[in-house]
Amino acid sequence: MSLQSIKYSRGSLEILDQLLLPGQSKYLVVRGVEDGWKVINKMQVRGAPAIAIVGCLSLAVEVNPEEFGSKKLLRQEIEGKLNYLVSARPTAVNMKIAADELITLANELDKDENIDVAEMKHRFLSATEAMLKKDIADNRAIGAHGAKAILQGVTEAAGASAGSAGSVRVLTHCNTGSLATAGYGTALGVVRQLAELGKLEHVYCTETRPYNQGARLTAYELVHEKFPATLVLDSMVAALLRAKNVAAVVVGADRVAANGDTANKIGTYQIAVVAKHHGVPFYVAAPLTSIDLAIPSGDHIIIEERPDREMTHVGEHRIAAPGINCWNPAFDVTPASLITGIITERGVFKPAELNAAISKLLES
Amino acid sequence: MSLQSIKYSRGSLEILDQLLLPGQSKYLVVRGVEDGWKVINKMQVRGAPAIAIVGCLSLAVEVNPEEFGSKKLLRQEIEGKLNYLVSARPTAVNMKIAADELITLANELDKDENIDVAEMKHRFLSATEAMLKKDIADNRAIGAHGAKAILQGVTEAAGASAGSAGSVRVLTHCNTGSLATAGYGTALGVVRQLAELGKLEHVYCTETRPYNQGARLTAYELVHEKFPATLVLDSMVAALLRAKNVAAVVVGADRVAANGDTANKIGTYQIAVVAKHHGVPFYVAAPLTSIDLAIPSGDHIIIEERPDREMTHVGEHRIAAPGINCWNPAFDVTPASLITGIITERGVFKPAELNAAISKLLES
Repeated sequence: MSLQSIKYSRGSLEILDQLLLPGQSKYLVVRGVEDGWKVINKMQVRGAPAIAIVGCLSLAVEVNPEEFGSKKLLRQEIEGKLNYLVSARPTAVNMKIAADELITLANELDKDENIDVAEMKHRFLSATEAMLKKDIADNRAIGAHGAKAILQGVTEAAGASAGSAGSVRVLTHCNTGSLATAGYGTALGVVRQLAELGKLEHVYCTETRPYNQGARLTAYELVHEKFPATLVLDSMVAALLRAKNVAAVVVGADRVAANGDTANKIGTYQIAVVAKHHGVPFYVAAPLTSIDLAIPSGDHIIIEERPDREMTHVGEHRIAAPGINCWNPAFDVTPASLITGIITERGVFKPAELNAAISKLLES
Repeated sequence: MSLQSIKYSRGSLEILDQLLLPGQSKYLVVRGVEDGWKVINKMQVRGAPAIAIVGCLSLAVEVNPEEFGSKKLLRQEIEGKLNYLVSARPTAVNMKIAADELITLANELDKDENIDVAEMKHRFLSATEAMLKKDIADNRAIGAHGAKAILQGVTEAAGASAGSAGSVRVLTHCNTGSLATAGYGTALGVVRQLAELGKLEHVYCTETRPYNQGARLTAYELVHEKFPATLVLDSMVAALLRAKNVAAVVVGADRVAANGDTANKIGTYQIAVVAKHHGVPFYVAAPLTSIDLAIPSGDHIIIEERPDREMTHVGEHRIAAPGINCWNPAFDVTPASLITGIITERGVFKPAELNAAISKLLES
C-alpha cells in the first residue's frame, strides 16, 4: 500500500506532519476546523490538492458528531467554516474551489424541502469524502495511463510487439506523490503503477532546489515504498540521460495551457530540453483540473518570483555569499514542442490534440 | 584590482581562508612549509593552481631568510620540503608537477659550478615567484582572448562591424576565479576582462551543487568586485537563457582531451546542451597545461564518483531523506560538438583545430 499522508475514516482524520520530514515520520490528529486551519497555515500539509482535501475533511470530522437544530444552522456552519479554512493559505486555489463547491451544495440541500437536517449532514459528509476518493481514483487512472504510454513507447522504439517491454528506468522532478495529493500521486503515481506492474527497474529523482522537494519528499516516498531509487542533483540530468539508459521523464504540472505549454516547478523546462537532446520521451502528468483551456499558451502564464532567502539559506544556515542578488522564479514554462504526451485520468494526449480532446470530454 | 586570495612579497605570504567564506573574509599568515602544508590539507586554500602556488611560496618564505652551509644542503632542503608539501593533498596534480619542476631546477643549480649557494637560493626564489606571476599573466591573457572572442561573436551574429559590440550578459558555472587560481581566474578572468573593457552588462553564476562553489565563492568574488551579478540555481539555466538574452556561457575545465571533449564540474555538460538549444555560444577557458593531447577523447576520462554525504548534507544538516541512494559524479564530459571555442593564454581554438594548433605551439 502506498504511503498515506492523509488517514481518514468517518469521524477521524490524521495527517503526516510534513514539517518534520524527512527526519521524522509523525502523524498529527486533526480534530476539527481549528486544527485543520493550523496544519494548513503552518504547512504541515502542503500541495494544492492535499490542502483542499485536508481542509474539507477537517470540517467533516467536526460536523460529524454534532447535532444541528436546523438546516439553516448547518448551512451557516458549513459556509462560515469553509471560508475560514480558505484564509489559512489564500493562494492555494484548490481549497477555494473545493469550498465553493461544498457551499453551493449546502445551499442546494438547505433549499431542498424533501430532506431533513440529518440527511443534509449525511449528504454533506458523503460529498466531502467523495473528494478524497475521487482524487485518489483520478491519480490511479493517471498512473495506469502513464505507465502504459511509457511502456508502449519503449516497445515501439525497440520495434517489438506491444506489451513485451522489459523493466524501465524513469526520471521525475519535484514531488508529485502521496505527499502532494490526497494519495498515490500524479507523476509519482505513474512511477507507482510501473512498480505495481513489475516494470520499474529504477527511478531517479532530482533534488529540486531551492526547496529540495525531491531530496526531502520524493526520496522519502521512494524509500518508504522500497522502490529501487536514486537521488541526483538538478545539474546531473544530462549526464544521467547520457549514462543510464533512462526510458522516460515524467513530471507534474501546475497549469497546462490549451496548446499544451506547461507551467511546472523551476527546472522542468531544462529537463525537457535535455530529454529532447537525448531522444528521451518527456511526459507531463496532470489531472484535468490542471488543464486550463482559457489560457491559449504559456506566454500568458505569469511566473511568480520568490524571495532570495529561499536560495541563500538552508534553514537558518547561509549558503550563499552575502550581498549577491538572486533570480528565483518558482516555475518555468515548458513549450508543448518538447512534450511527448500529457497524461490525464482520461488518457494520454499529444499537446496538439489536447484542446480538442479535452473540449470533447468536457461536453460529454 | 581583482580579489587577492594569495598575497605575496618576498619573505611574506598570506592567504584568504576559504573555509570561512563567504561569511568571513580573513587572511592567514603562512610562515613556512608547516603552515603551507596545513592550509592545503585543511582546504583553507583550494583549486589546483592555487594549491601549487601556495605550497611552493610557503617554501620560498621559509628558505628566504635562512643561510645554507652548502648548495647540497639547500638542494636537500628544497627536495625534502616539496615532497612533504605534495603529501598535503596527493590528488592535486599541479602541486606535484610544480614540485618536480623546482626539484629539477635545484638539481641543475646544485651541479652548476659557476654559481654559489647565495646565487642558487636567489635563483630558486625567483623561479618560485615566477610561477605566481606566470599563472596570473596566463589568466589575464585567457581573459583578453576570451572577452575578444565573445564580443566578436556578438557583433558577427548581429551582422555589425567588429569592435562595435555593446555590453553583454554572460553566464558562468562553478568557481574559476581568484579563489581557484593564483589570481584573476580563467573563465572568471574572461568576465573580469569584459568588465575592464566596460562591456559587462551582467554576469550570472550558478549555485553549483553539491559544494556550492558558485553561490559561496564565485558570488563572493562578484560581490567583492561590485560586478552587476545574479546568482541562479543549477536548474534555472534554460529558463535564464530563454528570458535574459545571455550572449555567451564561459566555464573552466579540469581537463581537455585532444579532440576538445572537456571534463569539468558536474553540470557543465547540461549547460552546454541547454546553450546549444538556445543558440548561445559556449566557451571553455583553460590554460594550455589543462589540455592533455595524450587523451584522444572524453571517453578516456574516468569520472570520480564522490560520497553521498556531499549531496545529503549541508554542513551537519541533513537535507535528503534517510536511506536514499545517491549518484554523485564530481565531473561530467562535454563533447566537443557542443563547444564553440576553447580559450587559452595563446588564443581561442575551435575544438576541431585544437590538436594541430597546440601541437604547433608546443613545437615552436
